[in-house]
Amino acid sequence: VEIDMVINVPNGRASRVAIVGFGTVGRSVARILCSNEVPQLQLTRIFNRGVARKRVDWVPPSVAWTESIDEALAPDVDLVVELVGGLEPADGWVRRALESGKSVVTANKQLIAHRGASLVELADRCGCELRFEASVAGGVPVLRALQDGLAGDRLVSVTGIVNGTCAYILSRMEHANLRFADALAEAQAAGFAEADPSEDVDGSDAAAKLSILSAIGLRLPVRAADIAARSIRPIERVDFNYAFELGRTIRQIAHASVQPDGSVIAAVGPALVPLDSGFGRVTGSENLVTVRGIFGGETSFLGSGAGGSPTAVAVVSDLLSIHRAWRRRDEHAAGPLTSAARQVSGDIFAPHYVRFVARDRTGIIAAVGSVFARYGLNIDAVLQLPDYPKDRLPFVATLEPCSDSEVRRALADIATLDWVVEPPLSLPMLPFGARREAA
Amino acid sequence: VEIDMVINVPNGRASRVAIVGFGTVGRSVARILCSNEVPQLQLTRIFNRGVARKRVDWVPPSVAWTESIDEALAPDVDLVVELVGGLEPADGWVRRALESGKSVVTANKQLIAHRGASLVELADRCGCELRFEASVAGGVPVLRALQDGLAGDRLVSVTGIVNGTCAYILSRMEHANLRFADALAEAQAAGFAEADPSEDVDGSDAAAKLSILSAIGLRLPVRAADIAARSIRPIERVDFNYAFELGRTIRQIAHASVQPDGSVIAAVGPALVPLDSGFGRVTGSENLVTVRGIFGGETSFLGSGAGGSPTAVAVVSDLLSIHRAWRRRDEHAAGPLTSAARQVSGDIFAPHYVRFVARDRTGIIAAVGSVFARYGLNIDAVLQLPDYPKDRLPFVATLEPCSDSEVRRALADIATLDWVVEPPLSLPMLPFGARREAA
Repeated sequence: VEIDMVINVPNGRASRVAIVGFGTVGRSVARILCSNEVPQLQLTRIFNRGVARKRVDWVPPSVAWTESIDEALAPDVDLVVELVGGLEPADGWVRRALESGKSVVTANKQLIAHRGASLVELADRCGCELRFEASVAGGVPVLRALQDGLAGDRLVSVTGIVNGTCAYILSRMEHANLRFADALAEAQAAGFAEADPSEDVDGSDAAAKLSILSAIGLRLPVRAADIAARSIRPIERVDFNYAFELGRTIRQIAHASVQPDGSVIAAVGPALVPLDSGFGRVTGSENLVTVRGIFGGETSFLGSGAGGSPTAVAVVSDLLSIHRAWRRRDEHAAGPLTSAARQVSGDIFAPHYVRFVARDRTGIIAAVGSVFARYGLNIDAVLQLPDYPKDRLPFVATLEPCSDSEVRRALADIATLDWVVEPPLSLPMLPFGARREAA
Repeated sequence: VEIDMVINVPNGRASRVAIVGFGTVGRSVARILCSNEVPQLQLTRIFNRGVARKRVDWVPPSVAWTESIDEALAPDVDLVVELVGGLEPADGWVRRALESGKSVVTANKQLIAHRGASLVELADRCGCELRFEASVAGGVPVLRALQDGLAGDRLVSVTGIVNGTCAYILSRMEHANLRFADALAEAQAAGFAEADPSEDVDGSDAAAKLSILSAIGLRLPVRAADIAARSIRPIERVDFNYAFELGRTIRQIAHASVQPDGSVIAAVGPALVPLDSGFGRVTGSENLVTVRGIFGGETSFLGSGAGGSPTAVAVVSDLLSIHRAWRRRDEHAAGPLTSAARQVSGDIFAPHYVRFVARDRTGIIAAVGSVFARYGLNIDAVLQLPDYPKDRLPFVATLEPCSDSEVRRALADIATLDWVVEPPLSLPMLPFGARREAA
């Protein structure tokens, strides 16, 4: 009875919440907290730089608006929602909150990917919780599902579409037949891509999320910086035409897996996915994460990966979870984030799609075939669509399952041949396999 | 500090687990517990009637085999896994376990759907936990996701494919062009259907699961017996032909939703689903559950809905969760199961597919149209495939979104017309809508 009474302390009153960072997600969190849906949580403070221009009239007058972080972290605040993003000053503020005994909920993927281990350790030492469901896949409760719902399995791979900007650009290239540059410009105009889109299109956003998914799902700490990231910039319209011929389309895929020999593959980049698969059918800001366990097989999670409201649902769910389990430590969550980072490989083993642009002449297929043969790579099919100019003729070869590194070595040789107009493009094709199947 | 010490008591040693019921799932749970994956859990007892014939050699000698339920519920057991199924004697054994201070994990959907409220109350009174993730959608951790991961949202609808027998039969009708009776016989021969398949094909299995999903996801207690269930028995091969013409196929769908006026719709039965939707692509023993929340929009969960190993993952995940949060009460889980059952309607509002079988003559379409018009129903399209006999000519009308009850009233009138050879078949078409959109 005593135990229950101690644990239930916060059930007697609402937990007092401060929102630090009042952008799109912050406003959506406030919307939910100011509705009647979650009486367990009481919004008491909103922090933002230049907070005056942020004020909205639907927040009750009991909420204090402030541009002083000290006020946001005042003693009467129980829970802090960190939504400023980036490493600094977010990192310092989260530490201050934890050190003063406040649990923290964040949507900050870079902070968790890069500093998560030490922050979770700090939270543990302070008897607080640090939760970050919103940092991956927005409103899709995938971290919780991996950590708790599939705890009884040993997950060996995680594969996902987790970047909305790439999904938008590739979808527009696919459906509106746009070039990458035009699709990017459109995404920027529509607010789906930053002025500097590198973090999204070159893969570091997805790599940060994959690092978190690996830690929680595979219980493997993988540094985001160690994850091989390939840009979607080289994708051209013709690649979609060929992908369609193969019953496929192109998406940015984040993938991490434990190989039979215990090594780890982790990579982010464009990949061909079957048109009729879950990945092929992801549209707009949807995120899809599929995991495979040794006992339970494949399980998938699909939902809104971006947008204020879905992300806010993840934040509020985390707040409720802390409210309910007040100050209870979750050793399991801390485990994978606190152990030493693992070495990983980005050397995906999968069927591959290779697109060449050639100055047409006889003997090209033979030349390609002999290089591939030299590296032990087997061609599955060769495709050539009509109506392209003879001096810049694209054609495609698909390869039976092989290592990305083997393909690249072969392509480096092929790139030196005199009929090659531009460097060949290679893409892995879902589903990815295990590198050493004979092992 | 004291709090943590109290809560962490069981972390010092493994929790001792008894498996009650050693069938397919029980063996798979034992497999995981006897692997090195979950050292926190120690299998100590296995109960089954006539246990001698159940013995396997890969269980360590430290495990006691017994056919005495008293031994399975002995004082040194911490956690009981109930896998005998059905209401009795499972109900009595679960109560005994809870009353003696043991938390219980079960995969028993009928027990939870019919007695869940009082069992959760009993668990609360006894300071124990009762968990039942495995009772719905096998290895897909959907209950946990709804309860915790989406706790910050208010969910207003849940739609799922949750019965493997129906999925098998309908898939075989679709892909092998079998009649219902032949697909059922094949399913029975393959072990995917019981000798008496009523519980599966007529919908009470899915209704029990929908009752649990409604309680946990929509926080609406709905009695399984109050859920309108329609059998898949009337589905014929020709329905798949017409469904294909519409870009659709047929699945057993379980659906519950809160209408704008606060009323509740809950129904189980065959429905047309888009071929290229998640529901249309579910195969084999996959389960798919999609929920919609007022803040987060749609979220979907897909995975293995049956089979020993996936279901065992759900059981072991529940065991681990209890091990971690030893004896902490979860008021949230109890809430919807313990409040009074809500009145529900099975009157789905959706576009409808209606298939007639007619003795061909002129004026049939006009007659159908005038009856539908009398009930305010709008025809969207009329289809008639070639090559059927004139005296048993199937044709199909699709209707704009309307209530199931309106369609049935119109069909009762049409059934009296002289050219009608057999009673018309109506099916709702995904996505289902809100009944009173003008409200």
